[in-house]
Amino acid sequence: MSEHIVSSYDQDLEDLRRAISEMGGVAEKMMTDATEALVRRDTALAQAVITADKRLDTLQREIEERSVLLIARRQPLAIDLRETISGIRVAGDLERIGDLAKNIAKRVVAIGDQTQPQKIVLGVQHMSDLVQEQLKDVLDAYGTRDVSAAHDVWQRDSAIDALYNSLFRELLTYMMEDPRNISFCTHLLFCAKNVERIGDHTTNIAETIEYLVTGETPAGERPKNDASNYATVQPGAA
Amino acid sequence: MSEHIVSSYDQDLEDLRRAISEMGGVAEKMMTDATEALVRRDTALAQAVITADKRLDTLQREIEERSVLLIARRQPLAIDLRETISGIRVAGDLERIGDLAKNIAKRVVAIGDQTQPQKIVLGVQHMSDLVQEQLKDVLDAYGTRDVSAAHDVWQRDSAIDALYNSLFRELLTYMMEDPRNISFCTHLLFCAKNVERIGDHTTNIAETIEYLVTGETPAGERPKNDASNYATVQPGAA
Repeated sequence: MSEHIVSSYDQDLEDLRRAISEMGGVAEKMMTDATEALVRRDTALAQAVITADKRLDTLQREIEERSVLLIARRQPLAIDLRETISGIRVAGDLERIGDLAKNIAKRVVAIGDQTQPQKIVLGVQHMSDLVQEQLKDVLDAYGTRDVSAAHDVWQRDSAIDALYNSLFRELLTYMMEDPRNISFCTHLLFCAKNVERIGDHTTNIAETIEYLVTGETPAGERPKNDASNYATVQPGAA
Repeated sequence: MSEHIVSSYDQDLEDLRRAISEMGGVAEKMMTDATEALVRRDTALAQAVITADKRLDTLQREIEERSVLLIARRQPLAIDLRETISGIRVAGDLERIGDLAKNIAKRVVAIGDQTQPQKIVLGVQHMSDLVQEQLKDVLDAYGTRDVSAAHDVWQRDSAIDALYNSLFRELLTYMMEDPRNISFCTHLLFCAKNVERIGDHTTNIAETIEYLVTGETPAGERPKNDASNYATVQPGAA
């Protein structure tokens, strides 16, 4: 194989890495902005998040097509083949994270003019801060191929699920206390659910990193903690 | 190219088609069963749906890896390359549909012993019936490469969004009428949201069919009708 072909193949992989890194940056910013828009009730910032999602969709399609062409043209084996498959998977998760951030932004537009105690929003903000940290850490781990850091992210997801569960109960309690809270708290419930699902996608990326480096996906069940799907709250129980 | 290689390549594509068809069957059954479990409050059937999801996850990974190996080994071009990319995309959507059906099943387990008027559940059932029809039609269209049937599915999604919007308002109204409805109706809200998202994934599959056959994705924005993200209901407004 000539130097020229080798270097052009490396260039293809480098381009793929750069595109995924760009997607990661956009997804991170969308999530930070969506949360800030929710806390500050900033509908202009929320609109910016909704607009940014188009860029993420375009990037994902490009990465998918570029990866498949790379596989068809270069027939990569072992680690290089895993790198291309991983690229497709990570791009898919980042696109979903963008969708979820966009959904939060749409709800900010919806609840824009309802006055409610700011305190209720803080629980969602706290949860979002933790998930943003997870997203940053997993993207760093993907960049440096750090399996141990990825595994750390994977394990921390159950703490986020636990936080979501307590937030779910808290929001239900607010709704039972005063029917005027119901509409607002329902939107917050969906926001919290979206944040929790962004956490799930960071866990997916952590699993992909392990597959990329070792060729294996993590053994055993995820440390899930999704009891809120089973949670119910009765009026007067608070 | 020898007869032998051609026939083995056709066999690879045929295997891929069969695996996707199996995934489609599992996803359809999961959705039908999850809805029936919700209507009948049948927690055993709900547990069966939760278990079935594992098969779907395994099939998706297999399809993804098989497609990528097919691309690497055979270097397919044009229609065959699109067939393999489409396979990866459709498998991804079917896996997500299974996840959403599983989430509905988990909520059936949660609300199992709460007595509530059956009437509230019927709206979700009606919406689910429509989405099940969409799923069946889009899987048929994928099997027969029928772009016109796929486009029909694509256009009908806005009717489902509209139904979701009215259901969302109705459930919020029930919650405001009586705080004892809040916990139950919150679970139904998430069930309805999951059904609406299954509808979105059938729309994705419709778009993939168009890409597969024509090489182009549908022009213009989807006929979305997602006003519920913006909907609010005030107490006493009902």
